[in-house]
Amino acid sequence: MKTLSLFEPIIPELQAVEKTLHDAVHVEQTQLRETLSYLLDSGGKRIRPAMVILSSKFHEHDETRVTPLAAAVEMLHTATLVHDDLLDGSLLRRGNATLNTRLNAGAVILVGDYLFAQAADLAAATESVPVVNIFAETLMTICQGELRHAFNQDGWRRTKEDYFLSTYSKTASLFAASAEAGALLSGAPTAVVRALREYGLNVGMAFQIVDDILDFVGDEAEMGKPIGSDLRQGTVTLPLLLFLDEYDESALLETIFEYGEGREEAIAALVELVRGSPSIDLAREEARRHTVKGKEALGSLAPNRYRQVLLDLADYLLGRRR
Amino acid sequence: MKTLSLFEPIIPELQAVEKTLHDAVHVEQTQLRETLSYLLDSGGKRIRPAMVILSSKFHEHDETRVTPLAAAVEMLHTATLVHDDLLDGSLLRRGNATLNTRLNAGAVILVGDYLFAQAADLAAATESVPVVNIFAETLMTICQGELRHAFNQDGWRRTKEDYFLSTYSKTASLFAASAEAGALLSGAPTAVVRALREYGLNVGMAFQIVDDILDFVGDEAEMGKPIGSDLRQGTVTLPLLLFLDEYDESALLETIFEYGEGREEAIAALVELVRGSPSIDLAREEARRHTVKGKEALGSLAPNRYRQVLLDLADYLLGRRR
Repeated sequence: MKTLSLFEPIIPELQAVEKTLHDAVHVEQTQLRETLSYLLDSGGKRIRPAMVILSSKFHEHDETRVTPLAAAVEMLHTATLVHDDLLDGSLLRRGNATLNTRLNAGAVILVGDYLFAQAADLAAATESVPVVNIFAETLMTICQGELRHAFNQDGWRRTKEDYFLSTYSKTASLFAASAEAGALLSGAPTAVVRALREYGLNVGMAFQIVDDILDFVGDEAEMGKPIGSDLRQGTVTLPLLLFLDEYDESALLETIFEYGEGREEAIAALVELVRGSPSIDLAREEARRHTVKGKEALGSLAPNRYRQVLLDLADYLLGRRR
Repeated sequence: MKTLSLFEPIIPELQAVEKTLHDAVHVEQTQLRETLSYLLDSGGKRIRPAMVILSSKFHEHDETRVTPLAAAVEMLHTATLVHDDLLDGSLLRRGNATLNTRLNAGAVILVGDYLFAQAADLAAATESVPVVNIFAETLMTICQGELRHAFNQDGWRRTKEDYFLSTYSKTASLFAASAEAGALLSGAPTAVVRALREYGLNVGMAFQIVDDILDFVGDEAEMGKPIGSDLRQGTVTLPLLLFLDEYDESALLETIFEYGEGREEAIAALVELVRGSPSIDLAREEARRHTVKGKEALGSLAPNRYRQVLLDLADYLLGRRR
C-alpha cells in the first residue's frame, strides 16, 4: 500500500482496511478477482478511508466497526470511478489503463455494479443503520449529480452555481459522508459529528477545485493522464468559468464544444490561455477559502494528534500537484 | 396499479408499497422523475413485493417496516432490469420501449445506479441490519452471475449445471431474499424464515425456467417482446439444452452463435424445432418439480389465508403464459 506520509499515525488502521478490501474481492471467479484486485491496486491514496478513521478518533469506540466503513467508502468511490471512466470513455487513470481498455462495456457496467454491492455489504457490516442510511443517501446524491449533467439541455454552458452544485454531488458529498459516518460510528456527540461533516464537505470541495485546476496546469507525467481532459470531454470547470468572466473566446469554445475541425489544437490553445490568465489564481483562492473553512470547523474538537493530521491533510490536498 | 387478482388479500399493503415507490422517485429534476415513473409504471406485477408482504404474515410485526422492504426489492429488481436491457440491447420489455430507445447509454447506466442507491436507501429504512445484509449479498449474487456470463470463455456452450447456477443468481436469489427478508423482518422463528426462503428460491427457479420456455412457445403479443430473444442474444436456456441432449443441429447452432448469414431464419427454424420437440415438456417438468418443492416447504407453516396465496402464487407462476 502506497499512501501519504502524513497518515503515519494511522498506518495499522489503514492496513486493516487494506486487508478488508482485499478479502472482499477475493472471489472464486479468476477474471473477476483479477479485475477487482487490479482496480484496488491502481494507486488510490486512500484519502477517504483515512478520513473515516481519523474522524472516528474523537470518541472511545469499537475499532472493528470502523474498518468495514472505511473499506465501504473506498469501494463505493472505486465503483463510481469505474462507471465514470466508462461514461467518459477515459483510457487512463492515475497512470494506469482503465477497465475500458481491458473489458467490453457490458462487463465494465457489471464490475461497477458488483463494487456497489460490495460497498453496500461492507456498509452493512458496520451494523449501524444510520451509517447505512448516510451511505445510500450519498450514492443517490452522486448519481443525481451525474444525471443532472447527463440530462442537461443547455449543452456545455453552465453557471458557477451549477459547477459548485455538481462539485458537491460528485466529490464533496462522499468526503462529507466519510467524516460524518466515521464520527457517528464512534458515538461522538452531535456537535462533533457536525463539525467533522463540515470539515469533510469543505475539504472535498477544495479537493475537486484543485483537481479541476490541475487539469489546466498539471504535469501530464505526474498526473498520469492527459491535460485538458475536462475540455476534451466537454466539461466546463471553475478555471474556465472564471476565465470567461473576463475574456471572450467564442471561436475556440465553439470548435471545442461543437466538435469542430481542429478540436485538439483548440483545446491546447484554450488550456494555454487559461493557464496564463489570473483565473488559475482566482480558482486557487476559491479552493483555499474552502480549505480554511474546513480547518476552522475542527476548532472546537480536542486538539489531539488526529486533529493535527486532519489539518495537515487539508493543506496537503490544497497544495498537491497531482 | 395492475396486479394479480390472487393478491386481493394484500391490496392495502401493495398500495402502501406503490405509494412508497412513487414517493421515492419524486425527485426535483423533471427528466429523471419522468424516467423513473415510466419505469415503475411499466407493467411490473409486483410479485417480489407481494412475496415480501406475504412472508411477513406468519408472525406479529410492525407493518411499517415491511413496506420499505417490499419497495426496496422492487426497486432493486427494476435497477437490474435497466442494466440488463442495456447489456442485451433490448428495445422492448413488457410491451413497452426500454430506456435504451429513449436515452443514451451513459444516462441509462446512471439511472440504473440511481435505482440501486434508492433500493439501498429503502432497505436501510427497514432499520434492520440483517435485512440490509441479505439485500447486499443478493445484489452481489446477481452481479456475480452476470459477470460469470460476461467473462465466460467458452462462448455459448454451457452445461445444465451452469444454467441452473445462473438461474439461481439472476432470478431465484432475489425471490429467495424477498421471502427470507420478509419473514426475518416480522421476527418469525428461524424455521419459518428458512421455510419461506426455500419457498422463494424454488418458486424463483420455476419462474425463470417458465420464462425461458415462453421464449420458445409464448405468444409475441401476449409477451410484449419478440420470441427467440434468448437465442438472438446468444443465450442458451434449458429447453435448448434438453433439445441438444437428443438432437444435433450443428449447422443452425453455428449460424446463430457465430453470427452467420441467415441468422434470423436460423433462429426461427431452431425455435420451431425446439417448440415441436419433447424438450418443452421436459423443461416444464423441471419447473414443476421446483414448484412442488417450493409449496412443500410451506407445509410446516400456519395454514392461514396468506399461506394459501403463496401456494396459489406458485401455481400461477408455473402456469402463466406471459
